[in-house]
Amino acid sequence: MKPIITAFDWVPDFAKGQVRDLRVRWALEEVGQPYDVRYLSQGEQKRPPHRACQPFGQVPTYEEGELTLFESGAIVLHIADRFGGLLPADPAARARAIEWAFAALNTVEPPLMDHAIATLFEGDKHWSKPRLPSVLQRIDERLGELSRRLGDSEWLDGDTFTAGDLLMVAVLRMATEEGLADRYDNLVAYVARGTARPAFQRALADQMAGFTGSPPPEFAAWLEKQSQGEMA
Amino acid sequence: MKPIITAFDWVPDFAKGQVRDLRVRWALEEVGQPYDVRYLSQGEQKRPPHRACQPFGQVPTYEEGELTLFESGAIVLHIADRFGGLLPADPAARARAIEWAFAALNTVEPPLMDHAIATLFEGDKHWSKPRLPSVLQRIDERLGELSRRLGDSEWLDGDTFTAGDLLMVAVLRMATEEGLADRYDNLVAYVARGTARPAFQRALADQMAGFTGSPPPEFAAWLEKQSQGEMA
Repeated sequence: MKPIITAFDWVPDFAKGQVRDLRVRWALEEVGQPYDVRYLSQGEQKRPPHRACQPFGQVPTYEEGELTLFESGAIVLHIADRFGGLLPADPAARARAIEWAFAALNTVEPPLMDHAIATLFEGDKHWSKPRLPSVLQRIDERLGELSRRLGDSEWLDGDTFTAGDLLMVAVLRMATEEGLADRYDNLVAYVARGTARPAFQRALADQMAGFTGSPPPEFAAWLEKQSQGEMA
Repeated sequence: MKPIITAFDWVPDFAKGQVRDLRVRWALEEVGQPYDVRYLSQGEQKRPPHRACQPFGQVPTYEEGELTLFESGAIVLHIADRFGGLLPADPAARARAIEWAFAALNTVEPPLMDHAIATLFEGDKHWSKPRLPSVLQRIDERLGELSRRLGDSEWLDGDTFTAGDLLMVAVLRMATEEGLADRYDNLVAYVARGTARPAFQRALADQMAGFTGSPPPEFAAWLEKQSQGEMA
């Protein structure tokens, strides 16, 4: 029985290729596990049937028989445990891979999400532009620290790609695609190595191919404003 | 051989009882594992010896023989795996406990950290006050969703306290202690149940007892400003 994940059938252009089901698709591709996708239209994620699986009204979810999971980080670690290949067998190396998974999601991603808030979701608010230098400084501090730790290693813990790298690369794409990591050649190359993996390429292509839906009416005003350049 | 964690010997008053070594101390107390603490003075966390263990210059770290870990979420899960008692044996229940660990750190904590930025770290910036309603709205949305999911359950996945509850309670204290969760009686009671556990009480007392150091000179100006009420 194939696992079933949830994903959106439509998102604004800036979110295409960034929605978090990508992380789960990537992990499933890495371990060679086929899966099915249940697509949600925008708005459906906030209604009761999906809320029963995902209390915060987000995607992705992951269903495997009786088990339903949410939180892309937890799903990626579950896939690694369940199907093998993304966590080393050695207990210490395994613990360090999980450490990098948390570093990606709890240390590196929060300032990058704050950047998305300041430039996209609240790009039209008067307080966003003045605070942007401080947001960028927090991001640069984290990227500089990560760059120094990575050095000239291929992956975060040496020469083995792990679930920690998968999540870190997925998070860092938010920085590299905005040019925020340009000062750190080794991070740019690290992300390029990660996204060059065939499993990532298949996952990305499949996420993009799934956007066959239309924006809901309530997005119209927001998209209109964006197209008029009111968003930073 | 006892594990060794790192903690600060001094932090500003608002951070006392909130520094993240508390989460690790709590987990160690829950599983009944004695540990040693290496205290760092403020500033030491950013210098090379500690950076070698913690690339982002934070506490806590965790040392156990040859293994050194950072990221409190990863350390708590490692302690759960290593010593037993904080993750259920049933694979599905275990996966759900890990899901709640990520929900605490990647979904609930980021808006609460943003609140700390807007009221403490950037409380004196002119952009902080105008954006506060939007920060509070994001927090309230998450707390409302969590409250509806928790319902009248004792813990997040039923009647067993797990590493997911430990991290969620630790994160929610940032909300309850600021009165941000007052609309959600069940969340307030959930945090009270968590913090009433003897293991939490011992961990908190030990963190507080460790603050025997002094503020470094560079904090003087900042503390002075705070005492003059310039911080929101």
